[in-house]
Amino acid sequence: MRGAEALVGSLVEAGVEVCFMNPGTSEMHFVQALDAVPRMRGVLALFEGVATGAADGYARVAGKPAGVLLHLGPGLGNGLANLHNARRAGTPLLCVVGAHATDHVRHDAPLESDITAVARTVSGWVHTSGDPRDVAADAMRALAAASERGGQIATLVLPADVSWSEGAAIAPPLPAAVPYPPDPGRVAAAAAAVAEPGAVLLLGGPALSERAMDAAGRIAAATGTRLLVETFPRCWDTGAGRPRVDKLGYFAEQALAQLDGASSLVLAGARAPVSFFGYPGVPGDLVPDGCPVVGLADTASDACAALEELAAAVAPGAVAEVAPREAPEPPPGPLDVRSMSAAIAAALPDGAIVVDESLTAGAALAPALQTAAPHTQLALTGGAIGQGLPSALGAAVAAPDRPVLAVQADGSALYTFQALWTMAREQLDVTVVLINNSAYAILRVELARTGAGEAARSGRAGRMLDLSDPTPDFVSLATGLGVPARRVESTEALLDALRWARDEPGPHLIEAIVPAVG
Amino acid sequence: MRGAEALVGSLVEAGVEVCFMNPGTSEMHFVQALDAVPRMRGVLALFEGVATGAADGYARVAGKPAGVLLHLGPGLGNGLANLHNARRAGTPLLCVVGAHATDHVRHDAPLESDITAVARTVSGWVHTSGDPRDVAADAMRALAAASERGGQIATLVLPADVSWSEGAAIAPPLPAAVPYPPDPGRVAAAAAAVAEPGAVLLLGGPALSERAMDAAGRIAAATGTRLLVETFPRCWDTGAGRPRVDKLGYFAEQALAQLDGASSLVLAGARAPVSFFGYPGVPGDLVPDGCPVVGLADTASDACAALEELAAAVAPGAVAEVAPREAPEPPPGPLDVRSMSAAIAAALPDGAIVVDESLTAGAALAPALQTAAPHTQLALTGGAIGQGLPSALGAAVAAPDRPVLAVQADGSALYTFQALWTMAREQLDVTVVLINNSAYAILRVELARTGAGEAARSGRAGRMLDLSDPTPDFVSLATGLGVPARRVESTEALLDALRWARDEPGPHLIEAIVPAVG
Repeated sequence: MRGAEALVGSLVEAGVEVCFMNPGTSEMHFVQALDAVPRMRGVLALFEGVATGAADGYARVAGKPAGVLLHLGPGLGNGLANLHNARRAGTPLLCVVGAHATDHVRHDAPLESDITAVARTVSGWVHTSGDPRDVAADAMRALAAASERGGQIATLVLPADVSWSEGAAIAPPLPAAVPYPPDPGRVAAAAAAVAEPGAVLLLGGPALSERAMDAAGRIAAATGTRLLVETFPRCWDTGAGRPRVDKLGYFAEQALAQLDGASSLVLAGARAPVSFFGYPGVPGDLVPDGCPVVGLADTASDACAALEELAAAVAPGAVAEVAPREAPEPPPGPLDVRSMSAAIAAALPDGAIVVDESLTAGAALAPALQTAAPHTQLALTGGAIGQGLPSALGAAVAAPDRPVLAVQADGSALYTFQALWTMAREQLDVTVVLINNSAYAILRVELARTGAGEAARSGRAGRMLDLSDPTPDFVSLATGLGVPARRVESTEALLDALRWARDEPGPHLIEAIVPAVG
Repeated sequence: MRGAEALVGSLVEAGVEVCFMNPGTSEMHFVQALDAVPRMRGVLALFEGVATGAADGYARVAGKPAGVLLHLGPGLGNGLANLHNARRAGTPLLCVVGAHATDHVRHDAPLESDITAVARTVSGWVHTSGDPRDVAADAMRALAAASERGGQIATLVLPADVSWSEGAAIAPPLPAAVPYPPDPGRVAAAAAAVAEPGAVLLLGGPALSERAMDAAGRIAAATGTRLLVETFPRCWDTGAGRPRVDKLGYFAEQALAQLDGASSLVLAGARAPVSFFGYPGVPGDLVPDGCPVVGLADTASDACAALEELAAAVAPGAVAEVAPREAPEPPPGPLDVRSMSAAIAAALPDGAIVVDESLTAGAALAPALQTAAPHTQLALTGGAIGQGLPSALGAAVAAPDRPVLAVQADGSALYTFQALWTMAREQLDVTVVLINNSAYAILRVELARTGAGEAARSGRAGRMLDLSDPTPDFVSLATGLGVPARRVESTEALLDALRWARDEPGPHLIEAIVPAVG
């Protein structure tokens, strides 16, 4: 058996049944193995950042890794930004990077580069396969590594000759790493903390599932502890019927206000909060002075079980207070971020997956979604924009029975817009609400916040933050990639378009013309 | 003066007057400095791969570096593939990567990553600026480093606080590195080699200018030496009135046939040829067995002067035989790669810059261009596809008085399609002929060549090499980014569209529907 076939065959035996790919010449045998191993679903992306972002979204929703297949160092480079986001999300992910044949490396051919140096910056495990007899076992080690530390990227560099040579055989899967169980000492310390008035419980990473949220809600109900969710949750079950929890604000001053007066900060699956960027004269550490930080469970732990043990200790018999289901009538007329958010909340189907890369528009979206139909939110964990559309694609592959809604800022969309083509090819049930404000609106805000000054839209600096002249036409762009699209400028038209997208199968894009917030 | 202003101010004093950018929060002071230093032209790209590819194309044509401004590690990742191409081209390029403020790094904020590890894989020089008092001098050292070894990437990591802090001052430019002068021993050895019948002179890198080509032509005329140009020239003056020289073939067997029987291989600005990929049973080293390789001038040398010294030694008074100007009438009717190439050659304006990422279609294009109007060709030096459109954009900024024609394969175009938006914003005179064959046609060929087998278009493997279902509509895509576009399916329509593109100012895209070669 050829190396590539043993590799792909072993992956499906181990439960990896989807591979997002953008292959090249050195990956041709991996591609050919798709014919021999029909249980592996190959999903083609037109750009590597789409493939890596899709693998991230898939794993967050499926709870198991997808594979991603990239073409040498440049392919890895193109996929790096969304691998960065996956690393920050703690996503288990198997990244296979094809490489030159082993005896071709010495020729320093045009595509040769230092793949492992780049891979190490995002991966917890990196290995170059050296022999077709080892490649399947290497892949199984990679897969086991991907499950460690709560989920990480494992990168297997796959030389072309290891793929094409005979002598390989299927390898059995290795046991996946299990998260650390709750630590009684930590649970006791957290119990003491939440017994004091003014405690704050910050939830993140693995502590955002429906079960975890229920446990957190019971703790809050019994003790008065305030709940917060990290700013960019990787996979958060929220909406009506679940505890109503605010996200920690993006800007340092918002977060500091939310944490002001906390008697302690208990962390469940979340890291101690820090400012996204440094600003002149603003602290980077967002934990209030003198506020003790109590680590209940880190991201490599079974944070959900830890919350349940904490709830059993401090909230026996308590019932979580949950958000009601109420979608206020969206105000009619021209769209703004508030009416757009209200319309999205009102139209949200039960059990939807909401991929949120709305950036400046998100401040209005988050509260509107709190009382919308129960749903799951995926956010931009690593700050590398261009994650929304690929992640929505991956989520839709992972959960074909759930509608996916991507709420997507315009500037960010244009990094990985090619994702739409794969949505069309795979006929995925994704609705993209594309918020066109013709600007890098977040950067207008940041320009002022960093003390760099105000940017006149027409000035030389301001022009670098401006997406008009020309304003991208997202209906044209989506149509060009095979996704039916409409432009809307009023609440009524948005609601109508959301119905259209829901009632027809396959992906749709709705370009919502909304004035910039910044 | 703030660090960013001193940096930008020093760059313009040193002759760097264009910066292609995709900035974020950490780069806001650099952006703001554009208002204070109006001689620096900021050119916004919607994606970092566009900015890096544009900086490559700019420097190849302008003969001096542009700056490129990227946002932290993910921004560098997005720009990495075209930095790889620039590295392989030997392009001088100043890459400024914004980073978190120095005292923010310890917080391991979401966007933190190992920037220098990634930068080192493409850069000859990497440094992190530590103080606003040093930043301008650091930039001048970077610029000097970019001129070394015939041209390389210098990466300056710029922490936000170094940008925003006061205390900086303009720094004077440092002398640029000069290429090594011709080595008399090497010239003598080359003279001896070309005196023998059957010698081959392979030209590349810095030995492709009009002057260098003329010297090579005289050597060929006097000695009968065969001339070849490397497969992917970085900047080649060719066409009518210049020596008619074939490029070394892309596939190993083509190149081996071209070099078969060579009595010696003399290298001028080119490396000894190697196969692009390794294939089972095919040699990677393309120099025929027993053929001596004579290095006249490497890529860090003044290869043009070396050729002129060689010509003076072996071809005194000789006159180069040059290609006539003759554009055969393109055959009318439905387009194929041959009629498309003939039409492009017939319509090519004098002094055009042709950016060639035509891949499978290029085999017909190259011979057609040999007798077209004199022009300059830029090719895909590093094999990382998605270089054509950005490079055309950069070339057009460097040479606003020359028409730029990008001959662009469809699959590759979709990696960095965002370049069209910047062409529209800057109203650059670029005509894109987009060859739509609905496939990664080169990979169909490669699948068979690597011995992986034939791919049925509808099969599971074949589908990974297929761009139909849905077929991207490039007219829609271009229009969506503000570039007027037309679809053509016949020679007549292509010729008409080329006239339309030439007669109207600004960029145009012509989608040529052409059957796949593979």
